[in-house]
Amino acid sequence: MNTPKWYADYINAAVADIPYPSEPSGLYEPIAYTLASGGKRLRPMLVLAACEACGVECGIALNQALGLEMYHNFTLLHDDVMDRADVRRGRPTVHVKWNDSTAILSGDAMLTMAGQLMMKVADVHKLRPVMELFNTTAMEIYEGQQYDMDFEQRMDVSIEDYLKMIRLKTSVLLGAACKLGAIVAGADQDTADKLYDYGTMLGLAFQLQDDYLDTFGDPAVFGKAIGGDILNDKKTYLYISALNCENAEVRREIAALLGTRSDGKIARVRELYVQEGIDLACRAAIDFYSQLAEKAIAETALPENAKEFFTTLARNSRSRCS
Amino acid sequence: MNTPKWYADYINAAVADIPYPSEPSGLYEPIAYTLASGGKRLRPMLVLAACEACGVECGIALNQALGLEMYHNFTLLHDDVMDRADVRRGRPTVHVKWNDSTAILSGDAMLTMAGQLMMKVADVHKLRPVMELFNTTAMEIYEGQQYDMDFEQRMDVSIEDYLKMIRLKTSVLLGAACKLGAIVAGADQDTADKLYDYGTMLGLAFQLQDDYLDTFGDPAVFGKAIGGDILNDKKTYLYISALNCENAEVRREIAALLGTRSDGKIARVRELYVQEGIDLACRAAIDFYSQLAEKAIAETALPENAKEFFTTLARNSRSRCS
Repeated sequence: MNTPKWYADYINAAVADIPYPSEPSGLYEPIAYTLASGGKRLRPMLVLAACEACGVECGIALNQALGLEMYHNFTLLHDDVMDRADVRRGRPTVHVKWNDSTAILSGDAMLTMAGQLMMKVADVHKLRPVMELFNTTAMEIYEGQQYDMDFEQRMDVSIEDYLKMIRLKTSVLLGAACKLGAIVAGADQDTADKLYDYGTMLGLAFQLQDDYLDTFGDPAVFGKAIGGDILNDKKTYLYISALNCENAEVRREIAALLGTRSDGKIARVRELYVQEGIDLACRAAIDFYSQLAEKAIAETALPENAKEFFTTLARNSRSRCS
Repeated sequence: MNTPKWYADYINAAVADIPYPSEPSGLYEPIAYTLASGGKRLRPMLVLAACEACGVECGIALNQALGLEMYHNFTLLHDDVMDRADVRRGRPTVHVKWNDSTAILSGDAMLTMAGQLMMKVADVHKLRPVMELFNTTAMEIYEGQQYDMDFEQRMDVSIEDYLKMIRLKTSVLLGAACKLGAIVAGADQDTADKLYDYGTMLGLAFQLQDDYLDTFGDPAVFGKAIGGDILNDKKTYLYISALNCENAEVRREIAALLGTRSDGKIARVRELYVQEGIDLACRAAIDFYSQLAEKAIAETALPENAKEFFTTLARNSRSRCS
């Protein structure tokens, strides 16, 4: 196994090498701009690492890794239009730098290009499993995004609803990343399925950690302002827990703050979260899913160094600060 | 060969049978709504007819026909957001009936579903040629849409630029439809290529006829108001011909009308088109491409009844009034 940094460097070099036609520049420049903006490259790293864990040189899964990164960036591009988000990874989003039409059309092209990269698997008999997993996962992600948008209009979202939503919107893509690497490597079904479970559980822990850090992160390390979720009444694990907590007064106060943007809102809501032990409940959920991820890996017959790679990744991911 | 009406009925029945998950309804209802709105079903008919022309019962290409219809409707859905079009086939567009986010996300799902339908080809060795043609065509269509949007900001568009744009945006999808039917039927390369040429030339004639009818159609038959392209300064074959005509006075008058929406604009521009013989030039171009389509079919070794089907389709399409 290589190190996470090695995989990230390898992916960044490959991303920079993706060839784009020069014309029409209005279509292709926003794609190159989006992919050049970096990010953790977590999904393509999982593809490569899973492939290598299954005993095959990871380069053979590079196109699937790039395809998944292209797909992920397409979803961010379109989500940013839907959410009217102006900044992504410290840079103006495509619909701000260009316009909505450009963001829509370049995103569409990225989705097709993701499929083209995904198709680049040498063994014709792996084509169908690779594409079926890719397409099924894509459909789940649209469903997750739809639920996320639906939740904005609802005050009766349960933690169960929320976990289903983030599983669809975020986690299955990490599961698919791991399984794609396994399929391309020709792994057996059981190993592929367990890697899928690992990625999905890792994804849940990852999203919950995102929720936690947005409210309780260290502003000096987190990379963006703390409390954005609270300010925008985003239905996170923390917010939904507060809306469903046993203390009726807290429920009322949280509901009364909906739509407000007062100076003290972030501090007050954070206070209520701590008072009700919601911060600890969130940390417990992160540990729970992270440990399920570790358990899925432990149950595989993968070599020890591969198990260690994925276990360390899960542990680092739940202790990450940014 | 069956009749065009038989194919359309067969496709409409199959479209009505496409299964959608019930939840989340905000994602799937707009898709069913879009596909139920009808249309000519020209593209799926070409898939089926080409398959049958190549000697294979057309049902085996039904999923590719549906995939192409799904893809076509996805492009309309997103184009309507980009063009801020409020009505499509006599009904409110998705972004009007729901909202922009719904139109974007449901469109994304349709693109993935199109790929899923396209993948449903029994012979694994046809998977790659089918998907490669589908993906390449999709990329060309995005390029065409980008050029179309670019042209809105330009006054120096040549007829050559325009023909390149409509070939990408509209025609290649008809070419791909014919070729997909041939590939699924297992036709030889030469037949598949000639069917592609037929569809592409038919597509050019089709788009030019659209341009012609929008200005010179019979309002009682055309189905929508005449002159919309003129009113909105749409860069059509007619408009670009006028902008590039030899009569400097006409060029100046056309340019001076840009952005105006006066009562007499449509009548006056139409008058100028006739005065400069631009209506006749457009009809000549329609005949030219329509005859190239017929020529491509004549050069195949397809059975006579198949040749007749496609030839009649090309002839009817250039004499159509709506």
